[in-house]
Amino acid sequence: MPEQHAATGIDETHDAGLRSWVASANQAGCDFPVQNLPHGVFRRGGRQEGWRGGVAIGDQVLDLAAALDAGAFSGPPATACGIDAHAASALALAAAAPLNGFMAAGQASWRAVRLALSRALRAGSPLEAALAPHLVPQAAVEMGLPATIGDYTDFYASVHHATTVGALFRPDAPLLPNYKWVPIGYHGRVSSIAVSGQRFPRPRGQLKGPADAAPRQAPSARLDYELEMGIFMGPGNASGDAIALDDARSRAFGMVLLNDWSARDIQAWEYQPLGPFLAKSFATTISPWVVTMEALAPYRVEWSRAAGDPQPLPYLDEGDARATAALDIALEACLETARMRERNQPPARLSVSSFKHAYWTVAQMIAHHSSNGCPLQPGDLFGTGTQSGPAHEEAGSLLELSLGGKQPIELPDGETRTFLEDGDAVVLRAHCERAGFARIGFGDCRGEVLPAR
Amino acid sequence: MPEQHAATGIDETHDAGLRSWVASANQAGCDFPVQNLPHGVFRRGGRQEGWRGGVAIGDQVLDLAAALDAGAFSGPPATACGIDAHAASALALAAAAPLNGFMAAGQASWRAVRLALSRALRAGSPLEAALAPHLVPQAAVEMGLPATIGDYTDFYASVHHATTVGALFRPDAPLLPNYKWVPIGYHGRVSSIAVSGQRFPRPRGQLKGPADAAPRQAPSARLDYELEMGIFMGPGNASGDAIALDDARSRAFGMVLLNDWSARDIQAWEYQPLGPFLAKSFATTISPWVVTMEALAPYRVEWSRAAGDPQPLPYLDEGDARATAALDIALEACLETARMRERNQPPARLSVSSFKHAYWTVAQMIAHHSSNGCPLQPGDLFGTGTQSGPAHEEAGSLLELSLGGKQPIELPDGETRTFLEDGDAVVLRAHCERAGFARIGFGDCRGEVLPAR
Repeated sequence: MPEQHAATGIDETHDAGLRSWVASANQAGCDFPVQNLPHGVFRRGGRQEGWRGGVAIGDQVLDLAAALDAGAFSGPPATACGIDAHAASALALAAAAPLNGFMAAGQASWRAVRLALSRALRAGSPLEAALAPHLVPQAAVEMGLPATIGDYTDFYASVHHATTVGALFRPDAPLLPNYKWVPIGYHGRVSSIAVSGQRFPRPRGQLKGPADAAPRQAPSARLDYELEMGIFMGPGNASGDAIALDDARSRAFGMVLLNDWSARDIQAWEYQPLGPFLAKSFATTISPWVVTMEALAPYRVEWSRAAGDPQPLPYLDEGDARATAALDIALEACLETARMRERNQPPARLSVSSFKHAYWTVAQMIAHHSSNGCPLQPGDLFGTGTQSGPAHEEAGSLLELSLGGKQPIELPDGETRTFLEDGDAVVLRAHCERAGFARIGFGDCRGEVLPAR
Repeated sequence: MPEQHAATGIDETHDAGLRSWVASANQAGCDFPVQNLPHGVFRRGGRQEGWRGGVAIGDQVLDLAAALDAGAFSGPPATACGIDAHAASALALAAAAPLNGFMAAGQASWRAVRLALSRALRAGSPLEAALAPHLVPQAAVEMGLPATIGDYTDFYASVHHATTVGALFRPDAPLLPNYKWVPIGYHGRVSSIAVSGQRFPRPRGQLKGPADAAPRQAPSARLDYELEMGIFMGPGNASGDAIALDDARSRAFGMVLLNDWSARDIQAWEYQPLGPFLAKSFATTISPWVVTMEALAPYRVEWSRAAGDPQPLPYLDEGDARATAALDIALEACLETARMRERNQPPARLSVSSFKHAYWTVAQMIAHHSSNGCPLQPGDLFGTGTQSGPAHEEAGSLLELSLGGKQPIELPDGETRTFLEDGDAVVLRAHCERAGFARIGFGDCRGEVLPAR
């Protein structure tokens, strides 16, 4: 094993000078250079084959299952790459679908796989000849959910989103008194989570305007997206135990983009007193490639709070770790209308923001969630809540951007939107960059609204 | 197949005159006479054997997997019981663990299994000799979760509970305007659901009294139970489709008791604006035997609403079916303190109620839940919400019985309670009885509070 920088988690795999023998991985702006190496679950389209684990490199997928079956990770070239028995058994977990077993294996296994794949895929690797036959173009594969998700929890970790939305729903009390103390979250629906490419009919629900005497059932007229990150959980805790904050830092496996589609009119009528339900449960879209926490190590930044914000309770206190407790992940939401698609125009950017603005860290979410003894499990998914930045134009939803539907957003060629229309596709994107390090990205998280049934 | 009474679902299996060759099933007050036949998942304690499906009869479990392996459901005696190929294949699903496949098979399969088991287990059955070796005492088995639960949803279907609790949390608006229109529900935590016998440490959480300047983390001081029913879902719906109310009536597989343990102090501080989270996610206990909707058919009663309650929206309108849309299931909550246990005293009864008071029917819950296109899946679990009756003494939680902790409940021998203390066990029980039909029960749903860790 190479020297590990315990404080930063940065090692030879993050070297910005590394290039891959997969040429597309070296192109400027590519989301999946050799410094990224995200994990996913895929199968080749049109073939009757099972789901398997793969790693994105450039515009290709390395078929880990096929490579292992062919013995590519054993023998002298593998030994020359430093792939030992531990790394080989961890690679076998990463080759299986779903990835719950790999997520359960923990940080030492994740790091062993990352190092092995970095050495195997970098230019000059002795494994190029053995692995090249097991590359499949991403354009030729179907992606699946990375894990069997036992539970999905959605947090609410942007104080900017909470304040803006709170003002729309509760003008007299925009930010509730608990917000700055409690990492607010709620349980979400697992069965309607799908990967990028999800298409769903506009949901129907009970709608009631302020002046209506009674509700009616109709398709939502205030359908929205929410720009979030998702976090896949690694090793969990036994029921009744809590995960301490120090321990929580090594428990997250990796991150994806997450679109928490929301029907604002259904939500407004149903959400009191037990929270959002049918306003959210019709669809949730995630990007299919899980960018590991190891890949994200170079983009850690200080977790800071505004003057006057309270000191977190001890079980949530990042202490000295706050210097690297946040992650600077640049976020972007784009809208592709049916007309843009017909005219072959690119999606229009709605907003940009960064995950660095989150009021709570990933480790705090894990520590809080398990603090009552609730058992977390490998493959559990957390949403971060809508990641709106401090400025109005950094908002992560149409509800915020259109001031609750009062001010339409202007799109190219004279189109406007307050909320989503049938045929609209929302594309979320994210990437990290920092001087001295490579740029890595998350791939697209795309979903499309179909007419109501 | 015998004549089916389409309107009532009552057939020969409900004949009150039936007796079983399993003697304990014929004892007065037995929860599991031959008219019940609930399904569960079990394994024999102390043996290294896998989970398997079984049926409760008297104080025994019929080991369906062992009986099938031994060929007990084929051959002339089985044919004499009317067990055909369809029934045999459905029995194989009921013998597997978890029961998701059987739940997915649908009402025709459930009825075929019920009829086969009724004929096989009734007195004089030609299958007695073949099945007797495959009975295992319930006292000798460990029960497991009946299904792999994909999603758990908790409804809020008692208007009496909602009104009483609402008054404690929101004196100015006890029953919110949406309550009588929307079957309010929220997503719950799956990973902390366990069957009767669950023991868990008192949860820690953020607590903040009205006079406190800031919250602190401490063990909950207002730990409570909630007396609910649980519903296991049968065949579900594809994403984007809704299940119409008429169709929903055949989609529930069966029911259990459910204790939705609740930390009232954690809940009060955390629940705004997204609903209960850590106040509930530390533990949920269900009774292990799933009483099928077929077994419950004789106990259907009119679903009625109070004068002035609004007519449900069309997608929730029971119409002519309201005459049998509710279920009269007698409910009981008991408390066994550590002292009662030491002195071998029976648990003290806290309250009795009935599921017939529920404001929403099981079919309405299914129709509402899927009305936005949310995919429901076999094995999904719904909680009904606390089933408090209209009278104060019929309340299904200590929060209600103690008037928010202000008026202690008196127990035998001078013990009192406002909320649960360490060592307290709560036992929920339920049964159905009606003139002309057998009495059937649900078995115990027991859980115990351990000291905080």
